[in-house]
Amino acid sequence: MLTPADIRRHLDHLTKPAGSLGRLEDLALRLCAIQQTFTPQTRPRRIVLFAADHGVAAEGVTSWPSDVTHLMVRNIVTGGAASSVLARTTETGLRLIDVGTFGPDLTTDLDPTNQYVCAKVRHGSRNLAVGPALTVEEFDRALAVGREQADAASRDGIRVVAAGEMGIGNSTPASCLTALLAGVPLETAVGRGAGADDAVLARKRDVVALAVAAARPRLGVDLRAAIASVAGLEIAALAGFFVGAADAGLTIVLDGFIATAGALVAERLRPGTATAMIAAHRSAEPGHAAALAALGLTPMLDTWNLRLGEGTGALLLMPLLDAAAAIVTQMATFDSAGIAAHE
Amino acid sequence: MLTPADIRRHLDHLTKPAGSLGRLEDLALRLCAIQQTFTPQTRPRRIVLFAADHGVAAEGVTSWPSDVTHLMVRNIVTGGAASSVLARTTETGLRLIDVGTFGPDLTTDLDPTNQYVCAKVRHGSRNLAVGPALTVEEFDRALAVGREQADAASRDGIRVVAAGEMGIGNSTPASCLTALLAGVPLETAVGRGAGADDAVLARKRDVVALAVAAARPRLGVDLRAAIASVAGLEIAALAGFFVGAADAGLTIVLDGFIATAGALVAERLRPGTATAMIAAHRSAEPGHAAALAALGLTPMLDTWNLRLGEGTGALLLMPLLDAAAAIVTQMATFDSAGIAAHE
Repeated sequence: MLTPADIRRHLDHLTKPAGSLGRLEDLALRLCAIQQTFTPQTRPRRIVLFAADHGVAAEGVTSWPSDVTHLMVRNIVTGGAASSVLARTTETGLRLIDVGTFGPDLTTDLDPTNQYVCAKVRHGSRNLAVGPALTVEEFDRALAVGREQADAASRDGIRVVAAGEMGIGNSTPASCLTALLAGVPLETAVGRGAGADDAVLARKRDVVALAVAAARPRLGVDLRAAIASVAGLEIAALAGFFVGAADAGLTIVLDGFIATAGALVAERLRPGTATAMIAAHRSAEPGHAAALAALGLTPMLDTWNLRLGEGTGALLLMPLLDAAAAIVTQMATFDSAGIAAHE
Repeated sequence: MLTPADIRRHLDHLTKPAGSLGRLEDLALRLCAIQQTFTPQTRPRRIVLFAADHGVAAEGVTSWPSDVTHLMVRNIVTGGAASSVLARTTETGLRLIDVGTFGPDLTTDLDPTNQYVCAKVRHGSRNLAVGPALTVEEFDRALAVGREQADAASRDGIRVVAAGEMGIGNSTPASCLTALLAGVPLETAVGRGAGADDAVLARKRDVVALAVAAARPRLGVDLRAAIASVAGLEIAALAGFFVGAADAGLTIVLDGFIATAGALVAERLRPGTATAMIAAHRSAEPGHAAALAALGLTPMLDTWNLRLGEGTGALLLMPLLDAAAAIVTQMATFDSAGIAAHE
């Protein structure tokens, strides 16, 4: 068992003043601790994006129409989205799983090398403002879709995974889950998502307040039903993916607010899942910091104000993870460089 | 002439909520503004490290002996230092120029493919606690060494450059220059460098206070002599490199406290040099933030607490610069993706 103290001691033997690489050393330490080795690996790696639609979008909680989910799925898979570009740039394999958009199955339409999978549980979640978004059975099926992707990554020899999402309206269920599972006050848990104006933000606050009030009493009675009632299909899939990835011993790079809602679900279903995670960034979404804190995670890019989703924050961290691993595995020690150890 | 408003408009046409990539968009904007194009290039790129020793180290202003400079030069060139590792990982060519260490010429000793150049102006600067560190003639020769490296990079077709340094004791001249040229109060300008304890820090404060008091009256009379009196050979070379790189139209990624002292000198000698710069990070060294502000620069990795030098902070930014360039050049627009433009 490599303890943080063991890893810190190893880092302090490398040819640099102790601690002088600051947060890069924190990142290296976390990576070594998760992989339990002084020769951590960051490749091969993969990001899996889960897409779904949300009945609650009909409540006016988002300023984007739901058909943007479907258009963005196509954009991601054909290489034009931020996530596609950052995946290429950071040499991270990308898969997109439609776990429940309103849009059509694109399998025959898209080049199969594009790594698109249609695994719809249903066409969008129900409107959580008027009733449970998902049944427990639907929730479990979406979890299983995510878990299968983690198993596939493990079978393919992947070492580091990230997950992201595309789903117009999904900051509303994410806010519900952040309030419900991380105990974050509603004023903090609900933010502007992908650009809500004041009126949209006010509606979103009302919807989240009511849905959380309905779900909270069920939390101790039927955990899965309570979560399913305010979840989304892609968030359930994210949770299943995280549980599966942690079980398989993979290192998980955690993206922003929606992905972290999935992580909160995963941690509740399987305590300890978050110990396999590295938090890539702190989103501009106000509830994200508290959700990360609830998971015991410290975000690396904490002033970058990302709020796009699609796993883009996790992808941005990948080259810094490479750098952290390279420092640990490739730097000379004071001994090997013939420099007197420093007091 | 591409204005920041033009570039922001271009970024807002890409398939993402406006501004949702936060600081990555700021980085993209800066890169496009410097290169005056929507298709900025980040490769090929090179980091040039300038090494020198400092007579002032004899005053006990550092807890490391001067022979560590020489040992670290060898470590850098043979690939074991943090800078060597990060240069490899980020695919940045590395050159090390000995502009004045106390150590021997390693040309015959090291494999010539290692890109080591011995261009010593003298064996270390003089002790600035007892008199001027450099004559104006020595200062100008060191400037010319840096400038020649910028010219070489330009001739070699390099698009992005960074510069770093190795020199035990060099945070003392850097503190002097930060106080002298950026008007930073002494208490802020003097920090712990590579790990000074309280006693060392107190001596360093005294030395810097006296040297700056002696140099300040000369600033308006003989600028170069005033700067040279508290400079170091590698800092002068950094300044020459920055002036040359900006003149050649290269994009400069600026490292930490010592490199920024070089940038302050460059900006004083050739106003406008800093407009070619992107500040990679804000160092743990307390004077760095103020020095960057004096140059009108906003650091990108502002919470990473790096304090190693050797250009390591600049190297860490390189893959994020790649990401910023990729976003601008490769993302689809709302039009091309068939998504209705968002109000």
